[in-house]
Amino acid sequence: MIHSQYPSKEELEVRQTNVRNLLKASGAGACLVATPVNLYYLTGKVFAGYVYLPVDGEPLCFVRRPVDLPGENVIPIRKPEDIPGLLAGRKQRLPSVLLLEADQITHHEFLRLEAVFRPKATGNATAVLRKARTIKTPWETAQLRMSAKKHIETYRQIPALFHEGMKDVELQYEIERLMRKNGSLGIFRTFGSNMEIFMGSLLAGENAATPSPFDFALGGGGLSPCLPIGANGGTIRPGQTVMVDMAGNFTPYLTDMTRVYSYGTLPDAVHRAHQASVRMHRRFAETVKAGTSCADIYNQSVEMAREAGFAAHFMGTVQQARFVGHGVGLEINEPPVLTARSEDLLQAGMVIAYEPKFVFPETGAVGIENTFLVTETGVENLTVLEEAIVPLGL
Amino acid sequence: MIHSQYPSKEELEVRQTNVRNLLKASGAGACLVATPVNLYYLTGKVFAGYVYLPVDGEPLCFVRRPVDLPGENVIPIRKPEDIPGLLAGRKQRLPSVLLLEADQITHHEFLRLEAVFRPKATGNATAVLRKARTIKTPWETAQLRMSAKKHIETYRQIPALFHEGMKDVELQYEIERLMRKNGSLGIFRTFGSNMEIFMGSLLAGENAATPSPFDFALGGGGLSPCLPIGANGGTIRPGQTVMVDMAGNFTPYLTDMTRVYSYGTLPDAVHRAHQASVRMHRRFAETVKAGTSCADIYNQSVEMAREAGFAAHFMGTVQQARFVGHGVGLEINEPPVLTARSEDLLQAGMVIAYEPKFVFPETGAVGIENTFLVTETGVENLTVLEEAIVPLGL
Repeated sequence: MIHSQYPSKEELEVRQTNVRNLLKASGAGACLVATPVNLYYLTGKVFAGYVYLPVDGEPLCFVRRPVDLPGENVIPIRKPEDIPGLLAGRKQRLPSVLLLEADQITHHEFLRLEAVFRPKATGNATAVLRKARTIKTPWETAQLRMSAKKHIETYRQIPALFHEGMKDVELQYEIERLMRKNGSLGIFRTFGSNMEIFMGSLLAGENAATPSPFDFALGGGGLSPCLPIGANGGTIRPGQTVMVDMAGNFTPYLTDMTRVYSYGTLPDAVHRAHQASVRMHRRFAETVKAGTSCADIYNQSVEMAREAGFAAHFMGTVQQARFVGHGVGLEINEPPVLTARSEDLLQAGMVIAYEPKFVFPETGAVGIENTFLVTETGVENLTVLEEAIVPLGL
Repeated sequence: MIHSQYPSKEELEVRQTNVRNLLKASGAGACLVATPVNLYYLTGKVFAGYVYLPVDGEPLCFVRRPVDLPGENVIPIRKPEDIPGLLAGRKQRLPSVLLLEADQITHHEFLRLEAVFRPKATGNATAVLRKARTIKTPWETAQLRMSAKKHIETYRQIPALFHEGMKDVELQYEIERLMRKNGSLGIFRTFGSNMEIFMGSLLAGENAATPSPFDFALGGGGLSPCLPIGANGGTIRPGQTVMVDMAGNFTPYLTDMTRVYSYGTLPDAVHRAHQASVRMHRRFAETVKAGTSCADIYNQSVEMAREAGFAAHFMGTVQQARFVGHGVGLEINEPPVLTARSEDLLQAGMVIAYEPKFVFPETGAVGIENTFLVTETGVENLTVLEEAIVPLGL
């Protein structure tokens, strides 16, 4: 076990207090949480069962499995129907407004829990938890820094993994192994059903232009019709770029980072587009801080892409993504999202992945992605690493 | 792209007809499916959107992304609210009973789709699709055979990956890489929210006795409190077993297979327990066929474990799993499940993973798992490979 990934009691109390404040503001008496990511956020543990957090009391862990879960307030149950009696035994009244994870648990799970608690009204614990999770505590930021460090270390080693004649997937397998050896937990947590991916994406050459069914910035055809995303098994050829956008899942908290590698000589326009992305990052680093509008960042990015002459290549060609960045944390796609229609302002403690990218169907994708911590006075890049295109091979 | 993973139109029509028959039997007019596994099952494609399958017509694909999805009956939409108008334009009436994936889509997704279609009643498309998927077509069986072949090939190479002083995770990383090089798609699809895992499980020594929060047969503490399953970073020591239970995800269809490796000398009782598992497999292979009761298989397995003197070690120690096998296919945990309370009878075309295992806290886990195709006259083991404990090292 990696003991540094256990949040302390004090750390958990900070989070629970934040969530309680959001519960109060929404008029709810309690929330009941069942999904691994939110269980870990609120209790530092993953188990089969529920954490019940009332606005005015201790969180209680109702646990089906494992049978030996350590910790305070762990109450064994066989099924959720056991919970009301156990709460009554503790002289706790059932809440008249209960929040459940309506954007995460299935319809049938929701109906079952509603029937168990019989609240006058239900609300959406998913929205509350995702909102609370946008502002990272210092402990969470430290986890992100640890992920970033390993993420950077892994990317530095990528050129040494390449050899001539390699297929895109072969390079990806070697990067995946390196990630694991560097401490990647493997699992890549995404939010929502339209986000299936393995450990991340490697896009070489024309495959970068293949539209994706998913909410990722770019696509790629993938190996199989059952997982149409990322590397497609093509050989990496001279004149192509290789864009690496793998998950920084070296702690429970994910960093997101993209770098580009070239094999052979690239057209001048491709280099200029990459430079435009680097300039956009410079501008982001110089201008963004708590209070910056997410829509403004998106609109300025689009404007800079247009000024550089690459609007038609920005965030895809056949299909263009309508965002340039997103929050990251326990999941890769957290709020806020940097889109034209966002009404969100950045807040200190948010962690944002910024990823302005360009696609050239003949050559591949260029542009970088960094993960930034937002502060009152600016942003801090957690993923500092050479931003130029790195040549592969001799 | 691996073109052999594209089901033909005829293949898809067989599946659609089966699902239509189940729809009719349940009194439904149509089902609307949105999850990747069921989209792939019904259309051979994964996209963001919905497949609408009426009892008396062609399936229609309502597609948000990708913008260039090929195929017949592909209708672009921006949002599900577009669908009723598009159906009306095709002179199709909305169904009065509509099945939605109530055990897969979120509560909010369900409510949204219900509001779009305004059916008189809804029902559970998850149950219908999971039932249809239990009986594999010859094409699906061929996919499972391909997975099995690569699965076997990978396990054969495991002894060559081991070296003295290795940590459990180090061996796992090398197996994962080998799986990828042998064609693993990486992603390991499970059903339900209590089944988080990466590419599979490797359990060495006492870690095999650590109870799991999840619905897997065995647990293991894992590396991080955010993913408490599998290898825990301990060094593989003399006198321990290493149980490898990785996903056979070499096609969209998963095989499930467990083999055991030993390092140094094991206690005699541990060998005898392993032999009991092998005997249980022999009995399974000789007696099971279409019509066999799932509960009977479970009960006979428990009885054989008791007769061998290892009831207290069967399927765990601190926490014992209450099943000895399960269906496999596009997901690792498909119906039927081999439990004491099951009322299911096996049917020809079902594919069942049988995994009677024993845990010895000092030594580790033993026992094997094979994936069997059920036929009218018996079962066929798809994962034929030496079943004895394989020694590692010199």
